[in-house]
Amino acid sequence: MKKNILKKREMPDAYLNLPYYLNKYLGELPEPPLDPKTKKPIGPEALLRLFPLELIKQEVSLEKEIPIPDEVRELYASYRPSPLLRASRLEKILGTPASIYFKYEGASPVGSHKLNTALPQAYYNKKEGVSLLTTETGAGQWGSALALACRFFNMKCKVFMVKGSYEQKPYRKTVMHLYGADVIASPSVETQAGKAFLSRLPGTMGSLGMAISEAIEVAVTTPGAHYALGSVLNHVLTHQTIIGLEAKRQMEKGGVYPDVVVGCCGGGSNLAGISFPFLADKLSGNASALRVVAVEPESCPSLTKGEYRYDSADTAGMTPLMKMYTMGSGFVPSPIHAGGLRYHGDSPLVSFLYYKKLMEATAYGQRDVFAAARKFAQAEGIIPAPESAHAIRQVIEEANRAKEEGKKKTILFSLSGHGLLDLGAYEEFLEGGMV
Amino acid sequence: MKKNILKKREMPDAYLNLPYYLNKYLGELPEPPLDPKTKKPIGPEALLRLFPLELIKQEVSLEKEIPIPDEVRELYASYRPSPLLRASRLEKILGTPASIYFKYEGASPVGSHKLNTALPQAYYNKKEGVSLLTTETGAGQWGSALALACRFFNMKCKVFMVKGSYEQKPYRKTVMHLYGADVIASPSVETQAGKAFLSRLPGTMGSLGMAISEAIEVAVTTPGAHYALGSVLNHVLTHQTIIGLEAKRQMEKGGVYPDVVVGCCGGGSNLAGISFPFLADKLSGNASALRVVAVEPESCPSLTKGEYRYDSADTAGMTPLMKMYTMGSGFVPSPIHAGGLRYHGDSPLVSFLYYKKLMEATAYGQRDVFAAARKFAQAEGIIPAPESAHAIRQVIEEANRAKEEGKKKTILFSLSGHGLLDLGAYEEFLEGGMV
Repeated sequence: MKKNILKKREMPDAYLNLPYYLNKYLGELPEPPLDPKTKKPIGPEALLRLFPLELIKQEVSLEKEIPIPDEVRELYASYRPSPLLRASRLEKILGTPASIYFKYEGASPVGSHKLNTALPQAYYNKKEGVSLLTTETGAGQWGSALALACRFFNMKCKVFMVKGSYEQKPYRKTVMHLYGADVIASPSVETQAGKAFLSRLPGTMGSLGMAISEAIEVAVTTPGAHYALGSVLNHVLTHQTIIGLEAKRQMEKGGVYPDVVVGCCGGGSNLAGISFPFLADKLSGNASALRVVAVEPESCPSLTKGEYRYDSADTAGMTPLMKMYTMGSGFVPSPIHAGGLRYHGDSPLVSFLYYKKLMEATAYGQRDVFAAARKFAQAEGIIPAPESAHAIRQVIEEANRAKEEGKKKTILFSLSGHGLLDLGAYEEFLEGGMV
Repeated sequence: MKKNILKKREMPDAYLNLPYYLNKYLGELPEPPLDPKTKKPIGPEALLRLFPLELIKQEVSLEKEIPIPDEVRELYASYRPSPLLRASRLEKILGTPASIYFKYEGASPVGSHKLNTALPQAYYNKKEGVSLLTTETGAGQWGSALALACRFFNMKCKVFMVKGSYEQKPYRKTVMHLYGADVIASPSVETQAGKAFLSRLPGTMGSLGMAISEAIEVAVTTPGAHYALGSVLNHVLTHQTIIGLEAKRQMEKGGVYPDVVVGCCGGGSNLAGISFPFLADKLSGNASALRVVAVEPESCPSLTKGEYRYDSADTAGMTPLMKMYTMGSGFVPSPIHAGGLRYHGDSPLVSFLYYKKLMEATAYGQRDVFAAARKFAQAEGIIPAPESAHAIRQVIEEANRAKEEGKKKTILFSLSGHGLLDLGAYEEFLEGGMV
């Protein structure tokens, strides 16, 4: 594999805003969020208690681009552009005529793509005088990223971590502690919502939906506090487009363009990040054959088996209702190791694209995914996060298909994070204990 | 902090060989290794049972440069040049007039600088038809690197891992397993040496010296097998000069040159890697004021408190005797978390440089080192390996001194690896349990 480097002046100075392209070329946008009580569309002002004005503007923006603030670009420069690598050794092992490129987000200080949105979110909150950010985290990737971003911008950070992960993945908790964040196992007795979950479901190991409810409650009841979300919302997906924008420029320098873009999909931010800049080309008629594939776990198959309808983003029903593919907001997925993909729904933007057939989706079982991860690690050296390994499983599928068809094909995927804090899961897989 | 990037064509195509500079400008070289029985200098041929000829040639070479084979450069290209970053946020927190630069080796697939030498070592062994490489590992950084290099070159790999680490750091063992290596807790019953250690010291948690003895025994008694060492020897240090060579070019592009170069020092390969290219300047009269500082743990202070004399590199006395600063080859350091620095001696080259006052040395206690690591992580986001944190502790010392003296000063250090597999130690530190 080879590294493909952008010069600093070639780095993006704005995020790409996909709704502009949907509006201009498709003439249609995802349906708006609804007030959970009135079932009427909520205005941006309803979100002011949770988010800074600038992020709410981004949430509903139809501008083509959202400028990246200088302070955020400065912080990006310490780990971006992330490398675009070619998996030549994997290609050779598979004996495929396909070229496989991947954008590696695992070299960021927090080990995943989550810092890309944590930084601008912390920045805009700080600018508005916020002193505490609350959030939820599953496996801990998002919590670590926000903890670091808050540290950079001198804000406090309080993370509600799904209890199952809190107990099974102590190391991510340590990372957040080291950055100075408060980490609370959810459900907790610190909130009314938490107490209600605990009395209704004694002994529960928690879920992302419950943790969101708790984090929101603390944000709205604490002066100077706001809430931050690591996926699902438009502005979060928009921040992640820096991945795809860089990838596009890096590939252009090498004279290539993908036939298919693959990403794992939980809430959808990583998939959106790698694919939206290419989907913008497709929408504007410049890449009509381009395919985008979302990959999810069989145990939480919201796109492949869920319903497209309005649902709540959290378990207590505190968030606006959003139109999305969902397993139901009360759904508690089985405790697979890809904690970042254990979300009952998908972002409204990704859901809309899938509904409009601008995106495909597929699902794999856990053992199958870890077998792909091992193949990749042995070929390329990088040990992928279990979430990212879902994308790898599909990439191998695409490469094998190219081989059967005897076709050249350019595959691009996002390797959203490393798996160094998931080695317990790998050991379980290697010992044959994983189901 | 900012990234400083080299174009691929600017990447080094040869390692720097410091003995050339010592010979030419100092007119003196480290004393040669001795046969442990006859106490006479050993010839290169005595090493042929353990190492490929090409590496033995490098071991005694007085050439200015050692070319990097194309196959190795190709593999380097997937993670090199490693980033040269400026720790501007740390500078600000310290309020120092000093500029702090660091070369970050933790973004390599195995998370440390060890892959830099594992790749050429595997390459030369493969070229000579070797089918199995044996080695020892402490914390597991070197073992992981050699396991991956062997996988890349289709060789088997057998790693004797110090029993204490094998039991306390299961994740590094998983990494080696994932790459396909055999990992054996040392001392083991697989070797005569291991059995002897076990009967002499029942219940021992092992040491690097014992593991080396076992790995060498397997190499010399198995057809088609060779042994590989992760530090200490000249050729290993030479391979690591790619770190300093890149750093020098990256700094040149930014128009800066270090006043002081800092590296942690166990066997010495990381310190040599970052400093030798600058010491070559110093020897040739182009950087007379340059300082180089080796940093070691108080619990294994071979340079600061050891003796400069001939000693064995392993516990069973199977290796040639080497002139080095040593605590004695039977010394078993206390079980600190910086496993990579728990070696009883130092490489002959580093020892010679220290003896000749071309290098300084200092030692710190474990808690002090982790406090520096936390400060760094909170400032820059990257969580350093406990080994690398020793360098950071000294960098803070240098920066504070610059502040007291009101002097501008350019500091360069090597951040040899990330600490993501050492988070248990960080948790212990945060909870106040570390001594």
